[in-house]
Amino acid sequence: MIIIMKHDATDEQVNHVTDKLKSLGFGVHLSKGIERTVIGAIGDKRLLISQNVQMLPGVSELVPISKPYKLVSREFKTDDTIVRISENLSVGAGMPLLVIAGPCSVESKEQIISTAKAIKAAGASALRGGAYKPRSSPYAFQGLGEEGLKFMAEAKKETGLPIVTECLDPRDLPTVLKYADVIQIGARNMQNFVLLREVGKIKKPVLLKRGGGSTIEELLMSAEYILSEGNRNVILCERGIRTLETYTRNTLDLSAVPVIKDLTHLPIVVDPSHGTGKWKYVPTMSLAAVAAGADGLIIEVHPHPDAALSDGPQSLTPENFASLMVQIKKVAQAIGRKV
Amino acid sequence: MIIIMKHDATDEQVNHVTDKLKSLGFGVHLSKGIERTVIGAIGDKRLLISQNVQMLPGVSELVPISKPYKLVSREFKTDDTIVRISENLSVGAGMPLLVIAGPCSVESKEQIISTAKAIKAAGASALRGGAYKPRSSPYAFQGLGEEGLKFMAEAKKETGLPIVTECLDPRDLPTVLKYADVIQIGARNMQNFVLLREVGKIKKPVLLKRGGGSTIEELLMSAEYILSEGNRNVILCERGIRTLETYTRNTLDLSAVPVIKDLTHLPIVVDPSHGTGKWKYVPTMSLAAVAAGADGLIIEVHPHPDAALSDGPQSLTPENFASLMVQIKKVAQAIGRKV
Amino acid sequence: MIIIMKHDATDEQVNHVTDKLKSLGFGVHLSKGIERTVIGAIGDKRLLISQNVQMLPGVSELVPISKPYKLVSREFKTDDTIVRISENLSVGAGMPLLVIAGPCSVESKEQIISTAKAIKAAGASALRGGAYKPRSSPYAFQGLGEEGLKFMAEAKKETGLPIVTECLDPRDLPTVLKYADVIQIGARNMQNFVLLREVGKIKKPVLLKRGGGSTIEELLMSAEYILSEGNRNVILCERGIRTLETYTRNTLDLSAVPVIKDLTHLPIVVDPSHGTGKWKYVPTMSLAAVAAGADGLIIEVHPHPDAALSDGPQSLTPENFASLMVQIKKVAQAIGRKV
Amino acid sequence: MIIIMKHDATDEQVNHVTDKLKSLGFGVHLSKGIERTVIGAIGDKRLLISQNVQMLPGVSELVPISKPYKLVSREFKTDDTIVRISENLSVGAGMPLLVIAGPCSVESKEQIISTAKAIKAAGASALRGGAYKPRSSPYAFQGLGEEGLKFMAEAKKETGLPIVTECLDPRDLPTVLKYADVIQIGARNMQNFVLLREVGKIKKPVLLKRGGGSTIEELLMSAEYILSEGNRNVILCERGIRTLETYTRNTLDLSAVPVIKDLTHLPIVVDPSHGTGKWKYVPTMSLAAVAAGADGLIIEVHPHPDAALSDGPQSLTPENFASLMVQIKKVAQAIGRKV
Repeated sequence: MIIIMKHDATDEQVNHVTDKLKSLGFGVHLSKGIERTVIGAIGDKRLLISQNVQMLPGVSELVPISKPYKLVSREFKTDDTIVRISENLSVGAGMPLLVIAGPCSVESKEQIISTAKAIKAAGASALRGGAYKPRSSPYAFQGLGEEGLKFMAEAKKETGLPIVTECLDPRDLPTVLKYADVIQIGARNMQNFVLLREVGKIKKPVLLKRGGGSTIEELLMSAEYILSEGNRNVILCERGIRTLETYTRNTLDLSAVPVIKDLTHLPIVVDPSHGTGKWKYVPTMSLAAVAAGADGLIIEVHPHPDAALSDGPQSLTPENFASLMVQIKKVAQAIGRKV
Repeated sequence: MIIIMKHDATDEQVNHVTDKLKSLGFGVHLSKGIERTVIGAIGDKRLLISQNVQMLPGVSELVPISKPYKLVSREFKTDDTIVRISENLSVGAGMPLLVIAGPCSVESKEQIISTAKAIKAAGASALRGGAYKPRSSPYAFQGLGEEGLKFMAEAKKETGLPIVTECLDPRDLPTVLKYADVIQIGARNMQNFVLLREVGKIKKPVLLKRGGGSTIEELLMSAEYILSEGNRNVILCERGIRTLETYTRNTLDLSAVPVIKDLTHLPIVVDPSHGTGKWKYVPTMSLAAVAAGADGLIIEVHPHPDAALSDGPQSLTPENFASLMVQIKKVAQAIGRKV
Repeated sequence: MIIIMKHDATDEQVNHVTDKLKSLGFGVHLSKGIERTVIGAIGDKRLLISQNVQMLPGVSELVPISKPYKLVSREFKTDDTIVRISENLSVGAGMPLLVIAGPCSVESKEQIISTAKAIKAAGASALRGGAYKPRSSPYAFQGLGEEGLKFMAEAKKETGLPIVTECLDPRDLPTVLKYADVIQIGARNMQNFVLLREVGKIKKPVLLKRGGGSTIEELLMSAEYILSEGNRNVILCERGIRTLETYTRNTLDLSAVPVIKDLTHLPIVVDPSHGTGKWKYVPTMSLAAVAAGADGLIIEVHPHPDAALSDGPQSLTPENFASLMVQIKKVAQAIGRKV
Repeated sequence: MIIIMKHDATDEQVNHVTDKLKSLGFGVHLSKGIERTVIGAIGDKRLLISQNVQMLPGVSELVPISKPYKLVSREFKTDDTIVRISENLSVGAGMPLLVIAGPCSVESKEQIISTAKAIKAAGASALRGGAYKPRSSPYAFQGLGEEGLKFMAEAKKETGLPIVTECLDPRDLPTVLKYADVIQIGARNMQNFVLLREVGKIKKPVLLKRGGGSTIEELLMSAEYILSEGNRNVILCERGIRTLETYTRNTLDLSAVPVIKDLTHLPIVVDPSHGTGKWKYVPTMSLAAVAAGADGLIIEVHPHPDAALSDGPQSLTPENFASLMVQIKKVAQAIGRKV
């Protein structure tokens, strides 16, 4: 940690800071500049003391020189993490592109089974579907609950596709675990630390979505919660951030893909459906995500988008999804990736 | 709801939309303009059908003409809600300014009792303190849990100040309710709908903080969750939103005060400590919040900010808080409000 | 235009509004709903009257049903505009990908000529370079002025590459026009309406960059300024918007590419150098931009990025640029586009 | 400047950086930590070399320890700048509150003279009015030009109120200077560096508005442009920043007032009209701005807001403005300030 003193800090104040640091077990390097004195604190207790040192008289600001996350960082683990979803399906660098598809909400047995068959035929590798839905209005459809999970299980039995589904409530986790292959933590729960700790205690993969108002560093801190509890099977997901732009529901931050590959060893998938909010932009942004190096895609597909109980406007029909898969394979091939 | 058709929508498409609306029980008004046809749908089932209508061929966009919240709206209830916190303490329009003060985290019995005595002496009306802390790092201090609540109870016994404290986990709610007079829902949990439903089922007042990336409408929708479960004792709290500005931790949106007074009957308090993140700006912004018409303030006060386990940099000393109370009274008087 | 009345608007207020609209020459349709009355105003004088109607007693809000731009809209001109840069070089839908490359600032004759030769050899189609630089600090390098333009002219003579360069000041425009093939309007000047009008009066193509805090609609309104003065040769440029994310200099909004193709007939190019601010993310985001359907790229290349007087950190070396061109061709081919 | 090396930087890389720094005339302090090596560079040439050092092998990031602005900083000039507008009118710390009022646009002689008389009677100290208007649409009213300035001059003759008016184009500056007492640089031109340099060469006060997408630091850098050319008479203006919130036109950042007072010696005024965009919130936010310590206010007043050619919805009537002045005086008195 670097402590930058104010330009008019007195020698006494500088000494007070260095004494405090030494008493806390830090090595100290002093650097007197023309405008300011700068103190380097060597050691690793920054989390305990950062705030207090910041309050000492004469201190202008503190500059951390280590990142606040550890287990998720490339510096802690240089080789890429490959997350295994089922016997034959893994996601991460060097693996074939993971394509998760399916409706926003499970609405009926017929709906989810027909969707599963269609996306399987088109080449998808896993099935998404929400049984517990976080809706901004208390009056909107909230999901079928365990019944929805049972319908997904039947769809899995018929197609062999692993299940990706969201858990909202720590009290529902045992139920969700009976059916899900991957537990999704939604964007609105990215900083629900209670829930993060719970999914940190399980072994199944967790798909952690970036919050719409969150930075990449905060996403990584939330992943750190999960890893720090023991679950290393975390798949990150970029699904758009909130900006001033209104023509799209969110602004899909595709730069996050190479940045995340730089900062962490965890896989990163992209959700162009929430990222744009409009089905007509989903194919283009799916291709862009593949070209940007994403390890996978999660795409909303509904047999009848105009009758969907949620997110119809951003859902592809099975036919559009099948066409898209053809294009995805071409772009993946162009950058040397399998699908 | 207004349905705006595309400029090249065919008569057949217009008819298809009006037929669908009529079959759903809506009254329909058609308005053919020079550039576009516009359809007015009269009725109140918009939440069920909005998405599907949006998908019909020829539809350009839907414009809701009712607000998505009901119970919290001024239109539903025109007179101001006064939330009663204890026998002698209420918050809302026309009531004296509510001043909640105390440390970010409860750290020890001594700390919370001495703070409570100091803020009581200075004129505060309630005591804040966190026993369960939502921290962005899993390695940061997470709060004392029930022990912290017990310390707060002792502080209450000594001073008579009601307790405002946060609940993070629906499973902790029964414990928190044993001690708290007001349950705080933190900014990061503003859209934790599971938690909102739980505090909707209780009777005690809920202090609902606006999320840093959330709009006023979303705050009101979250309050709607609580009211829709039966708890009408909701106090809203503006605590700053995230912007590009970095000299302050957040950007305190004081315009939210008059806007919220316009849109809802619920009381609104302001948190200048999180709003600015720096104690030296807290007094000024407290006065500005009072002048803006806030029904109360929630201010971080710590006996030794430079030794605080969390949020030291934004905490006032008891001395500074006492000076501030003097100024607050003057500004409150200038706008005709008691403290 | 739709006028939504307040839920408690009186009949008198409604009549007052309809009378005013009729007196202004509008056709009027009235729609009385359960909660509110809605008035449709048919005609095309919305720009003149919108504000005043909004102020009438009983009016809640106005909803425009036409877009505020005309000449740039797809509705005005459905076929794609192809902008001709030189005898052999055009940009737009169906044209080969336009690749503009070169340094942020022209620094010397040697620098710009060696860069021009290197990018030409790698397959670039035009040369960028700044002679007048808008810098946030008055103490930073402000460009070589006309001398820089002369160096660019020599580079053009040696390579045949057309010149893309920025104009900051309407008084410099005649000078810049002597040398430039495309006049760039920088992000900070996107709403410098004085400058927009001036470049609207010329015939040469204008590359209009989206401001970092601007929406797509505002970009289109700024383009409308240029077209409304008579110059239809406008090339739009997405170069990143400002968000909370700090790992990248800006957030490159690639969704803007398909959205802009939807809303306007004008070509759109992408600047991944300013979009990310870090050279190591430029290749990946260039490929993503091509996959997203961009009509071109504008990429910073400098022979010695570590000695650049501006934007070194986001500049590619000629070698990296050459490698990137190989990858760009593969991705372009995958989506059926030539380079 | 602090140079933080990568955690795996080699000794050779560290030596290369220190050699480079020494060759550039910097003093160097080396601090080897457990995780990283940190280099302190002592000297003041950071603007020339920062980018190049950032590119050296092994360098992770650079941390500036000086602010990028000088002449505007408190460190350069500790005592508050008082800007003199006319013989009897000055603005700054300790001075009476400056209240500038008037219409968005000058529309006619009658309009501006009647407004000037009304605001003068209510206690305003200066008259605002736009003759050259920066409008986002080329089809919107663009102002009366010099004719508008002449009308303002007549209003000044009748009331004695000094004139505050915007200049958009460096070519118009001589004309504007013939009439104006304070030259306004609008939010959209905050980074029009050409215009900033021009108003830096004059002696009259400049009212510099913060751009809606700009940080406080960027505002200060723009002020630095003006001071660096020789004009020290700069008045800063907070007028709201763009956020996700839509109930207000902008989000008025009142925390900017105490922050700016901390960082610079220049006066700061607040524009609650653009800050909120709705006249009904203007009085409350005016009082809040005074309580926050603003040195002045700039408020839109129009004799007939519902007939205004621009910004009607955010304009007060003369009657509302007069009532507001009464309240302003009370709040100002409460914090010890004259009006």
